[in-house]
Amino acid sequence: MEQLIGACLVGQSGGPTSVINASAYGVIRTALDNPNITRVLGAAHGVKGILEDKLYDMDLEDEKELSYLLNTPSSALGSCRYKLKDSAVDDTDYRRLLEVFKKHNIRYFFYIGGNDSMDTCNKISKFMQAANYPCRVMGVPKTIDNDLFGTDHCPGFASAAKYVITSCMELRQDSTVYDYPTVCIVEIMGRHAGWLAASSAVATAMGSGPDLVYLPERDFDMDSFLSDVKRVMDEKNGECMIAVSEGIHDKDGVFIAEYGAAEAALDSFGHKQLGGVASTLVSFIKEKLGVSKIRGIELSLLQRCAAHCASATDINESFAAGRAAVNAAVAGETDKMMTFRRTTDENGNYRCDVVPENLSLAANTEKKVPQEWINAEGNGVTQQFVDYILPLIQGTPEIPMENGLPRYARLKKVLAD
Amino acid sequence: MEQLIGACLVGQSGGPTSVINASAYGVIRTALDNPNITRVLGAAHGVKGILEDKLYDMDLEDEKELSYLLNTPSSALGSCRYKLKDSAVDDTDYRRLLEVFKKHNIRYFFYIGGNDSMDTCNKISKFMQAANYPCRVMGVPKTIDNDLFGTDHCPGFASAAKYVITSCMELRQDSTVYDYPTVCIVEIMGRHAGWLAASSAVATAMGSGPDLVYLPERDFDMDSFLSDVKRVMDEKNGECMIAVSEGIHDKDGVFIAEYGAAEAALDSFGHKQLGGVASTLVSFIKEKLGVSKIRGIELSLLQRCAAHCASATDINESFAAGRAAVNAAVAGETDKMMTFRRTTDENGNYRCDVVPENLSLAANTEKKVPQEWINAEGNGVTQQFVDYILPLIQGTPEIPMENGLPRYARLKKVLAD
Repeated sequence: MEQLIGACLVGQSGGPTSVINASAYGVIRTALDNPNITRVLGAAHGVKGILEDKLYDMDLEDEKELSYLLNTPSSALGSCRYKLKDSAVDDTDYRRLLEVFKKHNIRYFFYIGGNDSMDTCNKISKFMQAANYPCRVMGVPKTIDNDLFGTDHCPGFASAAKYVITSCMELRQDSTVYDYPTVCIVEIMGRHAGWLAASSAVATAMGSGPDLVYLPERDFDMDSFLSDVKRVMDEKNGECMIAVSEGIHDKDGVFIAEYGAAEAALDSFGHKQLGGVASTLVSFIKEKLGVSKIRGIELSLLQRCAAHCASATDINESFAAGRAAVNAAVAGETDKMMTFRRTTDENGNYRCDVVPENLSLAANTEKKVPQEWINAEGNGVTQQFVDYILPLIQGTPEIPMENGLPRYARLKKVLAD
Repeated sequence: MEQLIGACLVGQSGGPTSVINASAYGVIRTALDNPNITRVLGAAHGVKGILEDKLYDMDLEDEKELSYLLNTPSSALGSCRYKLKDSAVDDTDYRRLLEVFKKHNIRYFFYIGGNDSMDTCNKISKFMQAANYPCRVMGVPKTIDNDLFGTDHCPGFASAAKYVITSCMELRQDSTVYDYPTVCIVEIMGRHAGWLAASSAVATAMGSGPDLVYLPERDFDMDSFLSDVKRVMDEKNGECMIAVSEGIHDKDGVFIAEYGAAEAALDSFGHKQLGGVASTLVSFIKEKLGVSKIRGIELSLLQRCAAHCASATDINESFAAGRAAVNAAVAGETDKMMTFRRTTDENGNYRCDVVPENLSLAANTEKKVPQEWINAEGNGVTQQFVDYILPLIQGTPEIPMENGLPRYARLKKVLAD
């Protein structure tokens, strides 16, 4: 394979995770150490920063500070949700990208993100090929939603799952201390795929988690739900803990969060306020089951940035995905996304191989929780799901501390001239 | 002091914390090892369990399992919010308590809780004295609110604070990744005292925290607030992060959470839904400042049960408070609450002494954040506050793990006959 010498550009895109910086560090550290790569640049706010020629010079960052990226949550370079048009319809953005690539002699491009970002990366890759501009383009996946096609699991999912599981274990302990009926509903991210909400069932498998778990992979029926809750409360001395994906919907596709929004919930200015699904379910349980002590808890952004509760396995794999992307690109690969393949080592233990696959594979497709991993009643998961997830959440990372608190990276972010 | 031989009873009361079990373990372990204590009992759901004679036999628990209490959140024995009447008005409960104490020959009573629980403990202590029933009664404080009078700080506060600080650091990272105006509001527990919300400012001191912090110790003015937010957004490229105590109120004492509740927020059943203060502020910022990307996050129960993020200092001190209570009681003390006195060791480092004080001292009084630790604008804290809290959150506990998750105690809870 022909040697390609030039600058490397890395960007982050889409919703942040606890470990998207670990992947960025995998790219940056490996690129800085590679003799074929003359310069390492970071795009400010993903593709938006490239269009604006706002690129940070990673060579100017302090080595130690860069290493803190391994444990720093969120997207240190900034992120965006910018959708490129089809280049056949309008290639303005693409021509601008090419201009910036040429200006900085960018020959290696790494884009870290989820479904939409892999689509962006794929489009850029195809355009550069069509333009005959030699540039190796690699996608590095991330998403707490775990919904990327073509990979056993996604960087970022396991750390979010570990936080969800740990928090559910703790909430179960907390919400059952009184001797009267108490219901606790935890709302977990996942609009279309229920991987993260499903992970809460691991807390149950460990003896302290939700009694009922509902995912968008099954149609939600309010009557069945209320009878599930009533049954659990009858069986468990009035206790019931519930985990739900934010995206649960009924058989007509109506989101449960929208139930009753018609009459309801105007804010102080008369605007309709769409509460989350947890607050909707709280209303129904209060009204239909007459339970007064009931709490809805939204894990909100906390679940995607809780780096203090990350999985060491996830961090290591995320770093490895970034590193492997650079090594593969330097070796000649392009137009690929790094995927994880689950295998076992000689002792039968979990092992994860990083394998490049076609970039177009994952773009804009969604992987859902398999129906056979959801129980017949649609209110929990099977042991297969627990077995799938357990190896991914292993290991406690060594987080650098300062003043008793995590020491997160503070980059200088000097713009490249 | 006369030797007193007999059984020991420990109870937990009020809202749980991450370390109230560490105090319980301090009591139980020390009592089990003391030759003057013939038996160790745990009250199911605090004073309610005593009234119902539902006491668990701690001697039957596995030693290893008991030791897990050190890192297990929430009240393992169960809790209650039961208020004893004034015994001069109605002594029915007190006579029943005495009956149960006599039945089990309880000569040592330890009650772990906050303001109300110290009041309960105080009343029981005084009644036993008046009834000439020899029993040594000790209160062991706990509260994430840190509002107990007579102690430098309260067991449970530092761990909740550490979680609040860490989460705010992470939320700051997460909520500032895009290049358009973004506001993030974090709602933190504290109805009357703002200690916990104030702790979020430590995240800011570490370089990644809220720009504005509002406490119930100062009257909240909506116009000043909106102009604070606007100023920060102007200065910081559209970014603004805010932390508020749930109990902030205006100069007339009206809770901000109630603003606009008149017209607003009916649930699907036509009931008024009082959103939290964060959601109220979200509405005002949307309407008055026209910001569209804005998120309110309620830390809810998560902040009081996040044992995975506890302060090792807090755990050690909470255990020490329980242990010291037993040792003091066996040595002859009674009618006392264990308090913390801050001092320094020979090297000038933080040290905390456990000191028994009169039980009536803390009952039903509230300690607020000193006015001089709040800045002039009432939207942040001073360095004094940061200096106060930093020593309390030091140290990462060694949490026993199983399957990559915290291993929390699973007690047998066998009822004593």
